Amino acid sequence: MSEKHQITENAQLPEPTLRRLPWYLAYVSTLRVANVEYVSTTRIAEALSVDPSQIAKDLSFLGIRGKTRIGYLVADLEETLVTFLGFRKRHNAIMAGAGSLGAALIADSGLQRYGLNIVAGIDINPELTGRKISGVEIFRPDAVNDLVRRLDAHIGVIAVPFESAQSVSDLLVAAGVKAIWNFTPSRIRVPEGIVISNTSIYSHLAVMYNRLSALDV
Amino acid sequence: MSEKHQITENAQLPEPTLRRLPWYLAYVSTLRVANVEYVSTTRIAEALSVDPSQIAKDLSFLGIRGKTRIGYLVADLEETLVTFLGFRKRHNAIMAGAGSLGAALIADSGLQRYGLNIVAGIDINPELTGRKISGVEIFRPDAVNDLVRRLDAHIGVIAVPFESAQSVSDLLVAAGVKAIWNFTPSRIRVPEGIVISNTSIYSHLAVMYNRLSALDV
Repeated sequence: MSEKHQITENAQLPEPTLRRLPWYLAYVSTLRVANVEYVSTTRIAEALSVDPSQIAKDLSFLGIRGKTRIGYLVADLEETLVTFLGFRKRHNAIMAGAGSLGAALIADSGLQRYGLNIVAGIDINPELTGRKISGVEIFRPDAVNDLVRRLDAHIGVIAVPFESAQSVSDLLVAAGVKAIWNFTPSRIRVPEGIVISNTSIYSHLAVMYNRLSALDV
Repeated sequence: MSEKHQITENAQLPEPTLRRLPWYLAYVSTLRVANVEYVSTTRIAEALSVDPSQIAKDLSFLGIRGKTRIGYLVADLEETLVTFLGFRKRHNAIMAGAGSLGAALIADSGLQRYGLNIVAGIDINPELTGRKISGVEIFRPDAVNDLVRRLDAHIGVIAVPFESAQSVSDLLVAAGVKAIWNFTPSRIRVPEGIVISNTSIYSHLAVMYNRLSALDV
């Protein structure tokens, strides 16, 4: 890294920082919508209940500097965060499993807005293959090698029944994807060098139910 | 419920344990589908890359005991986990925001299978109110007090644009929900005694993109 404005997109940031940056982005976008021009770390800290020194440290990874007493220009900070987080790029992905959750994820325009470009789906269900869901065509699983290469897909999103999660992941990795986004509650193993991200929606439900039952609801 | 099979559902479990239990459930269900009768902590440990002593400790919260050298009866362990995790009960919920993500969540039968029963939706968009999505009726936000009471909803699921997340959460809490499940990247503040669970799908994307960029993809 040289100078202070270089964005070191390729640096491996600490995961807690990476998880906080989208909160800052969401907040800063709210301010932009409300026509606020500048924002200080103190204000962000108050809004998000995060320690101000933590915010300053997190933002230092972006190579952006605020003005003393005034803070950051909202528009600049938003743009820097969007770019830094990779939301401006298009990341081609294959959706494995076009059932209820898979179809829902394909239909979610939010993912598109955050740079995830689902270019094709695969499913073993012959009633789904050949069909399109929100413009995304669903293929048989044995088409995956061709799809990954032809459509330049780097990410495999897994929303199949949990008992098939590992085998589908193996299929996607063999086809050449570099990252697996696992929406099943299964623990998936991937070879070294492959990125794995778990979004176990149902685990969050378990935590919430437990907390609720402690309230005696 | 008595003796060693007592399920202390109301205990506040450590969150890491609560997040691991659904992994065990997913694995054990896979074994049941494959007609496996018994499973040992060692086998679960190998399959999930979790320390066996950690698994034994986690499962001890369930008040279930395995047999020496044989392990747990798969069917018993599955049933105990499902019940303990609250997936067998119906938890009534209001979906706030019936746009892309909200509609997707309403349509996801997986949530239903894990006990989340979405009984109504609210949305400010007049084109959506009065309509049904997968059988769930969408109402105007000012109907929320009546909905929460009449439909006995304890959970509010938030999938509105991030700039409205806090005000919608306030509305739901004032109407009487005891838990907020937040799908927006916004940080939401709730009064003490209200359960908050954040599932920031897009934060996971940020982490994945960063890891991918470090691979130079």
